[in-house]
Amino acid sequence: MCELLGMSANVPTDICFSFAGLMRRGGATGPHGDGWGIGFYEGRGYRAFHDPDASAESEIARFIQHYSIKSEIVLSHIRKANRGRVCLENTHPFARELWGQTWSFAHNGQLRGIKKRPLDRYQPVGATDSEHAFCWLLDQVRTAFPTRPRQPRALWQLLAELCADLASLGVFNLLLSDSSAFYAHCSTRLCWLTRRAPFGRATLIDADMEIDFAQHAGPGDVVSVVATAPLTRDEIWRPFQPGEFRVFRAGQPVATMQHARAAP
Amino acid sequence: MCELLGMSANVPTDICFSFAGLMRRGGATGPHGDGWGIGFYEGRGYRAFHDPDASAESEIARFIQHYSIKSEIVLSHIRKANRGRVCLENTHPFARELWGQTWSFAHNGQLRGIKKRPLDRYQPVGATDSEHAFCWLLDQVRTAFPTRPRQPRALWQLLAELCADLASLGVFNLLLSDSSAFYAHCSTRLCWLTRRAPFGRATLIDADMEIDFAQHAGPGDVVSVVATAPLTRDEIWRPFQPGEFRVFRAGQPVATMQHARAAP
Repeated sequence: MCELLGMSANVPTDICFSFAGLMRRGGATGPHGDGWGIGFYEGRGYRAFHDPDASAESEIARFIQHYSIKSEIVLSHIRKANRGRVCLENTHPFARELWGQTWSFAHNGQLRGIKKRPLDRYQPVGATDSEHAFCWLLDQVRTAFPTRPRQPRALWQLLAELCADLASLGVFNLLLSDSSAFYAHCSTRLCWLTRRAPFGRATLIDADMEIDFAQHAGPGDVVSVVATAPLTRDEIWRPFQPGEFRVFRAGQPVATMQHARAAP
Repeated sequence: MCELLGMSANVPTDICFSFAGLMRRGGATGPHGDGWGIGFYEGRGYRAFHDPDASAESEIARFIQHYSIKSEIVLSHIRKANRGRVCLENTHPFARELWGQTWSFAHNGQLRGIKKRPLDRYQPVGATDSEHAFCWLLDQVRTAFPTRPRQPRALWQLLAELCADLASLGVFNLLLSDSSAFYAHCSTRLCWLTRRAPFGRATLIDADMEIDFAQHAGPGDVVSVVATAPLTRDEIWRPFQPGEFRVFRAGQPVATMQHARAAP
């Protein structure tokens, strides 16, 4: 199992608090000691930090907590390797360009037989099932829509179908973004919440940290967070249903699609 | 003008010393205060750090100098914006995947009319001439070689020709890598050196720093460095000739190709 953390916000927001909890699970309070990565969107721009070392020990992780990058969309992943050795090119999130937008992808789970699916324009750099699945997914999107469709819902529908298809191969808990929206698919385990005014306090489960969001957030701020398991003890995290695909834009949940599990 | 710094090494090597000199030129000893970026290859893996802030003031730059990533190939760029506003997506080096390898690209210069050249598989995310040129170059490589050619020289020859073509549009000083080799093209200004045993001492021009490479390098280490202008005062930097394209592998200069400047 790996752990996922993602965020969508309507204003550039730092994810330091939630990230601090997640990083503790990489080798300290959790078994996920095989590297980690985080990607930040700032408008159309994207930057990622990858580290093949355990996150709880990572100097880069400490730096990011201190440096506090403000971003509208974040994807993070800490890894317990089950396919592919521990090295930089096997570390999520993976990123590729499509339609002049940077897409990024962080996945938890295993996909039986995924590497038998032929690839065309996108090829994996590393050896993971996950990166193969990402390349396959982008190939399908590009074939269906050589340019970005005008109706976002047509894209969301396709992404939900592709996620259901991939989930038929095993476990497919996914965070995905194209810089315009943030997508999440649950196969077995994922939960979410939206923070908005009136803001309250929250306490991390994995570290001795408390925050009063009222001190940090503006009255119009809306921030949604998606994680493998709840990160705080005093907020209500809603579970995803298996087969559920959710779209977030500017911090708001804007669409939910539920697919029956496709036949393997 | 922007400043470029690149490295090819036969063992994972940290670039902290040279990088410290370059970063001073971003807003302190030089005028290049419009952001900077650096990409590191570790085997097939690639990670980049981008910062739209001036490098001399950058917390990320200070972190990288302290953290000392060891890498076989490095590309770095500090920017004086002349095309495209200062933001993350306009910050070099740019990266794309081709043949399952991460290519990265850092450019100094302006290219008149480059945006009129049509693009196919690769599309720019930002607004710079440079990223458009990178996308165009990769499109040409992919069209000529749908899979990686067996003979590296066939690829080098094509890259040299494409660089000459791009240089015909203006100024094209380039650092490029595909994770296997490190390429540099000089249109107006670039110099290089190779460090190998017996190692000596070197003193930065832009900062009060001296290093004794004999204390840091193994006897078999070979490291080539390419930069816009010499970074040290007590080593012999060799100038590139205008129109010169050089290939470095595992620290060694392995090929040089000289193209006459194509007619504009």
